[in-house]
Amino acid sequence: MTQMEYARKGVATEAMKIVASEENVPLDTVVAAVAEGTAVIPLNIHHTNCHPIGVGRIFKTKVNANLGRSVTHSGRGDELDKLNVAIKAGADFVMDLSVGDDIKAIRQGMLNASSKPLGTVPVYETISRLKGDIPQMDPSLLLQVIKEQAEQGVDFMTLHAGLLLNHIPLAMKRKMGIVSRGGAIMAEWMMENKSENPLYTKWDEVLDILSEHDVTVSLGDGLRPGCLADASDAAQFGELEVLGELVERCRKRSVQVMVEGPGHVPFNQIKMNMEREQQICKGAPFYVLGPVVTDIAPGYDHITSAIGATAAATYGASLLCYVTAAEHLGLPDAREVHEGVISYKIAAHAGDVARDLPGARVRDDEMSDARAAFDWEKQFSLALDPETAKTRWLKTRNNTDEAHCEDHCSMCGKEFCAVRTSRRIKNMSKKL
Amino acid sequence: MTQMEYARKGVATEAMKIVASEENVPLDTVVAAVAEGTAVIPLNIHHTNCHPIGVGRIFKTKVNANLGRSVTHSGRGDELDKLNVAIKAGADFVMDLSVGDDIKAIRQGMLNASSKPLGTVPVYETISRLKGDIPQMDPSLLLQVIKEQAEQGVDFMTLHAGLLLNHIPLAMKRKMGIVSRGGAIMAEWMMENKSENPLYTKWDEVLDILSEHDVTVSLGDGLRPGCLADASDAAQFGELEVLGELVERCRKRSVQVMVEGPGHVPFNQIKMNMEREQQICKGAPFYVLGPVVTDIAPGYDHITSAIGATAAATYGASLLCYVTAAEHLGLPDAREVHEGVISYKIAAHAGDVARDLPGARVRDDEMSDARAAFDWEKQFSLALDPETAKTRWLKTRNNTDEAHCEDHCSMCGKEFCAVRTSRRIKNMSKKL
Repeated sequence: MTQMEYARKGVATEAMKIVASEENVPLDTVVAAVAEGTAVIPLNIHHTNCHPIGVGRIFKTKVNANLGRSVTHSGRGDELDKLNVAIKAGADFVMDLSVGDDIKAIRQGMLNASSKPLGTVPVYETISRLKGDIPQMDPSLLLQVIKEQAEQGVDFMTLHAGLLLNHIPLAMKRKMGIVSRGGAIMAEWMMENKSENPLYTKWDEVLDILSEHDVTVSLGDGLRPGCLADASDAAQFGELEVLGELVERCRKRSVQVMVEGPGHVPFNQIKMNMEREQQICKGAPFYVLGPVVTDIAPGYDHITSAIGATAAATYGASLLCYVTAAEHLGLPDAREVHEGVISYKIAAHAGDVARDLPGARVRDDEMSDARAAFDWEKQFSLALDPETAKTRWLKTRNNTDEAHCEDHCSMCGKEFCAVRTSRRIKNMSKKL
Repeated sequence: MTQMEYARKGVATEAMKIVASEENVPLDTVVAAVAEGTAVIPLNIHHTNCHPIGVGRIFKTKVNANLGRSVTHSGRGDELDKLNVAIKAGADFVMDLSVGDDIKAIRQGMLNASSKPLGTVPVYETISRLKGDIPQMDPSLLLQVIKEQAEQGVDFMTLHAGLLLNHIPLAMKRKMGIVSRGGAIMAEWMMENKSENPLYTKWDEVLDILSEHDVTVSLGDGLRPGCLADASDAAQFGELEVLGELVERCRKRSVQVMVEGPGHVPFNQIKMNMEREQQICKGAPFYVLGPVVTDIAPGYDHITSAIGATAAATYGASLLCYVTAAEHLGLPDAREVHEGVISYKIAAHAGDVARDLPGARVRDDEMSDARAAFDWEKQFSLALDPETAKTRWLKTRNNTDEAHCEDHCSMCGKEFCAVRTSRRIKNMSKKL
């Protein structure tokens, strides 16, 4: 039985209890949200070492880190290193997007090493087995790979089932066409075989497999915009309508489902995009990639996209897929994975504060109290990245005669420390 | 005569012509905006090697980089290096916030080296001359310093003239009190001397000096919130009302004026803050510091604040003061200055795109065309930081056999490159 089936029978599973406790949300509320599909707990029944994480607007916004080798780059060891870096930095989910050889072993290594739910895009392994020959893909092979991955313990799968033949001409009018790797694969197969999307036509068979292992569907946005100019266009929103239909089909089968979204979106269009998805997909958790809010900053897309992700989290997203500084240039190294996750923890948290999620600002307030009290160790312990904060602070102090002063920082120096001055003013105020 | 006086007589100065040409805004529009005060061109008549830059909502959003030594850190050489780094990265304005000894010489070095307008906070030099003894400051010394700096060629000055005695009890109720260095100095002086803010009481004398040299006022927000909990409170908005009054007094004297703003603000309060300032200060250009949208990420405040700055630029700010990764921990080094400026160029540009400033998206569209064409050199030339982008790209390529392939990148590799696949689909589409 899936978490959704249990919930619909009114049964609170161990996973729901853990999520309710960690999120400080009443258990009844969690059960009801999983039952109606506004929250999901991606947790394959075979992934027994996995800690359950809730995704939905009643919970804190979550962060996913994409990992995985390309054909010519990296391998199992590197990806395991990056997995550990991502989890240590606070990633709530990880995806293995490997292509090329050795995919199953890489994934098994990640499943063994990860206490966090793991996602995949099964068509990557399918096409990798065919050495990249997309037109030759037999749909039954794709279903076979989905089944094997489900049996292996994958917690959620991106399936580009909403991209249909009639959307492709719309996407070809764009500047960037199709930039989703999975979407481009499905579209080429459809064009070459003059056939409708096999994930769409065989959706019930797909759901049979997923239901058996409680794999959560992540409906891929194969037509997500790849640049600002393509955002919010007919191709994107045409696919979104089909995703809304597929959400309903998942829910009828009690298969948990979330929906993926853009990508590249001007800052002023993000709110509308979030609201539109929530409406069309009837509150299914929205899982967004960025979005980046400008195309002109390669090398800094962890920042361009953390800006968009904050707006997304504020207005409707529940899960943020990080974008790293390597985006558009290469695969991220471990340092870039770390910075990417931290950038997205910032976005997720800033969004939770902005949408007034109960308790979200408590940690900020504790930090402010620690700052006012010059309690540096407390500040570091409250920081999203304690090591980086403390190292940077020590760097300044070790170079100066301020090394033993605790009651100011080197930004202004002791005589010019506003917090010190403000304290003196407060003492004077009390005497008045 | 000030730029504003010329504009009010209908005279288009050389500076206005340069700004109109570079911003691609009709000269009449520039003259009218400077005349009414919705745009300013900070340009001291003595700063003859300075290139004029326009600030206002009719222009592109601008970026300021704060520089300057603390009592124990850095000196003239370091600060000149950082100035060059900031300008190379694209800073439109720089401020010298030095305290301690040698301030005049540091500033002169910056004025000589900088083609960009330079700002200061005169009370810093005043208190530095008094070795930090705030209560002993004679208001006439503050005016003397303002006069000397104006004669030296400073283009704009932050003056905390709106913080009044009756605001101080409001600020003392806060978690963080007063975190503005200049604001805290003024408040302590006022409390110790039981006197109203001398910048406020002597405002006409201040304007006499500034008017003579066409120094632009930047009305300091001495009560800007120093944490999320203090944002949008009675202290902040009480001071803002006075700033609105001071804007009118500047305009009556034809002294150019902009208004400074927060600071630390939850993401969902930024729009309201921008609109409120624009209304109370009658369209005076809003110059904001960040704002940071969460307090829990020391070491990453260039990111927490670029998020807020994008929203600020979208909803009403005209000039963004960067916050660097060193914020709350120390003074920035050259690398942090560079990353800070780039983060803010991102925020300024993303805001310009979001508010549909005419032509803002052209560079994004050219980048997208270059990406679709695999024109890597064009991509780098369009990037906000070409060196970083190219270095990162080469790092991937030099390590692989893909080094000589131009038509894909290492993110997906050749077989899995969505842009390549999308191209094949486009070719098929054409044949149908």
